[in-house]
Amino acid sequence: MQIQDVVLTPVAFADPPLLNVMGVHEPFALRSVVQVICEDGVVGLGESYGDAAFLGEVRKVLPRLRGHDVFDLPGLRRIVGETLAGTVLTDEHGLIGGFSIRKTLSSVFSLFEVACLDAQGHALGLPVADLLGGKARDEVEFSAYLFYKYAAHLDGSEDSWGEIVTPEQLVGSARRMIDEYGFRSIKLKGGVFEPRREVEGIHALAEAFGGHPLRIDPNAAWTPDTGIAVAKELDGVLEYLEDPTPGIEGMAKVAGHANMPLATNMCVVDQGDIEPAFRAHAIGVLLSDHHFWGGMRATQALSVTCESFGVGLSMHSNSHLGISLAAMVHVAAATPHLTYACDTHWPWKSEDVIAPGALEFREGAVAVPDKPGLGIELDPDALAKANERFVRCGLTKRDDVTYMRKFEPGFEPNTARW
Amino acid sequence: MQIQDVVLTPVAFADPPLLNVMGVHEPFALRSVVQVICEDGVVGLGESYGDAAFLGEVRKVLPRLRGHDVFDLPGLRRIVGETLAGTVLTDEHGLIGGFSIRKTLSSVFSLFEVACLDAQGHALGLPVADLLGGKARDEVEFSAYLFYKYAAHLDGSEDSWGEIVTPEQLVGSARRMIDEYGFRSIKLKGGVFEPRREVEGIHALAEAFGGHPLRIDPNAAWTPDTGIAVAKELDGVLEYLEDPTPGIEGMAKVAGHANMPLATNMCVVDQGDIEPAFRAHAIGVLLSDHHFWGGMRATQALSVTCESFGVGLSMHSNSHLGISLAAMVHVAAATPHLTYACDTHWPWKSEDVIAPGALEFREGAVAVPDKPGLGIELDPDALAKANERFVRCGLTKRDDVTYMRKFEPGFEPNTARW
Ligand SMILES: [Mg+2]
Ligand SMILES: [Mg+2]
Repeated sequence: MQIQDVVLTPVAFADPPLLNVMGVHEPFALRSVVQVICEDGVVGLGESYGDAAFLGEVRKVLPRLRGHDVFDLPGLRRIVGETLAGTVLTDEHGLIGGFSIRKTLSSVFSLFEVACLDAQGHALGLPVADLLGGKARDEVEFSAYLFYKYAAHLDGSEDSWGEIVTPEQLVGSARRMIDEYGFRSIKLKGGVFEPRREVEGIHALAEAFGGHPLRIDPNAAWTPDTGIAVAKELDGVLEYLEDPTPGIEGMAKVAGHANMPLATNMCVVDQGDIEPAFRAHAIGVLLSDHHFWGGMRATQALSVTCESFGVGLSMHSNSHLGISLAAMVHVAAATPHLTYACDTHWPWKSEDVIAPGALEFREGAVAVPDKPGLGIELDPDALAKANERFVRCGLTKRDDVTYMRKFEPGFEPNTARW
Repeated sequence: MQIQDVVLTPVAFADPPLLNVMGVHEPFALRSVVQVICEDGVVGLGESYGDAAFLGEVRKVLPRLRGHDVFDLPGLRRIVGETLAGTVLTDEHGLIGGFSIRKTLSSVFSLFEVACLDAQGHALGLPVADLLGGKARDEVEFSAYLFYKYAAHLDGSEDSWGEIVTPEQLVGSARRMIDEYGFRSIKLKGGVFEPRREVEGIHALAEAFGGHPLRIDPNAAWTPDTGIAVAKELDGVLEYLEDPTPGIEGMAKVAGHANMPLATNMCVVDQGDIEPAFRAHAIGVLLSDHHFWGGMRATQALSVTCESFGVGLSMHSNSHLGISLAAMVHVAAATPHLTYACDTHWPWKSEDVIAPGALEFREGAVAVPDKPGLGIELDPDALAKANERFVRCGLTKRDDVTYMRKFEPGFEPNTARW
């Protein structure tokens, strides 16, 4: 089935002032939405990053896709590879690890792979999970993803979550999220305050939510020694400790002294990182992400590599919309070796580009849509509004650092700072 | 699409007296053919081992398959796992490595997975390669698989290949195979004569076929020291050295002193072997085989694990018929990281159960069928004849050893004998 046209729409959606090691989320998160338009009125949807650099690479590929067979994914990868030869997209917000030509290529390919798989599913009348080998589970579990946050954006009014900086506020936000979504696992995005304060937050969560598996992710804000100290302090409390410190070597050092597994979406972010990290026993859980690991099929294969080395698998999340959630749900469903609830920023957003109803959280899990393709529909009005928002907001890249400096002049992002 | 019925047909086909470390091939090779019959007249084909122990395990699963959705492969794996719980099939001919519950399960699952994928393809009007993510190549290259052999079976007349025991006879058989099929790579099944004589054979092939990549596979007949000596002797001559010696430890020892990569289908035969072998740098090429690695999708995932560790991938072959060749061609086509021409016993057989014409060798390669499913058709008369042959021949397992003793009384199969 040939591609007749591809429409790329950059979009923006409102995002609360969530804190992390790099600073604070700006008022809008940027995403790209792609519609792969095929013969017979079939349309496949994809979603990925929305910064100008990524959009620029994607735009280079668009003119080469007309006439390509949506079933020929290796050919699609060749086209992307030839078009982007030599380009390295730098991940300026610094939260998903290093850069490489292969990671750039994998990211751009992934956007189109998802859309092609959606189109395949529509053409064949099959859910994408079935195209990926079938469902190993009927629903996919997600975690409550907690953030420290400011009460309001600059010049904005307080949002419904309010300020979250104390253990009590943390517990309150977890309570709301669990009440609304039914999550079991709870993850705290750390790296914001000094480790002692974040450890206190985890203890407060452990006390309030006995039996709920807990995680903390300081995005490599700590030295290896601090990582080791926190691992000892939170022994028996965390299901895993995520990216305590930068780099494979540092992670291996912490791992050698930690009783819980270490997870990462920062030190193993590309196929080339697997061998050194696995040889060094640096990680116990890999947080996959089809957006930068080369798509849905590559994520399944990655899972088997992890299984072969006794490494667990879960899923990393960036701020995202419903097309990405649908893709995450399908690939997670079709990946037998998935050992932890996946991350999602879903509760932090209040708008989308897809028609509501296809993806619902019940007891912390999303049922795999059984309609053809990803099982979702674009809402054209919502897409137009989100695109208008993109144009109006004037943002061209994620820059938590500069925005943070408006709150805290002199702020310096700094991994291994503590 | 639900399975309505599954028909299992054991078959036998004539096999020449080919020599290997375990003895000599009996007059007939045994295989199983499965037809997965679905709604709307769709039928999926699979092929695998034909010994009584394997057939016994497959028969246990058959009654559980009625009503199962052919798109639900994880569910199929669960059914096989539940049905065979605890069974370990021993590989009595000893040529494809050790035994494990997981390998047994993977072997039985694979037979049905291939048939389900063929059925899926027929239902959707798509070649299996497209269901596996699309073709990374349009044709799949195979190697000329040479054997030392006797001129005739016991009580039989000389076959068209005649005796192959001298370097000249080896070169003659290679010439015939290359003339008929156009192969480039040439593989010699060794482990039959003392190493010096087999090295002579390789030198004769190198001289006669300059530029053709060469391999030798003694099926672990050598000690590590002999493996090292042969590796030095054939440095610059072999593209890879296959299973010189038994076990991961021995292979690692040889690998440490060999300039060419070591290949295996004996010391890494199950997911559990990957971590120890890769950590030990024991192999440079993995010879995959969808029949025992858990099917076509598992083979693709295995390939990505190999790619991540810089290990090459090719394909092992047992004596097989056209259904297995079609499956090999589709999975090889849809596996980007496939780095060497695959093995096949194809030239050694003269009959099949599929209608001729779908799979043709041109310049050593088979074009991927572009028809739905595997792109082959069963020949009902040929299947009936092959089943009759199975019943009449009375063989219930492969036993090269006992048959060899009729030629050479007192023969003892022995790995690491030299
Ligand atoms: Mg993280
Ligand atoms: Mg072999």
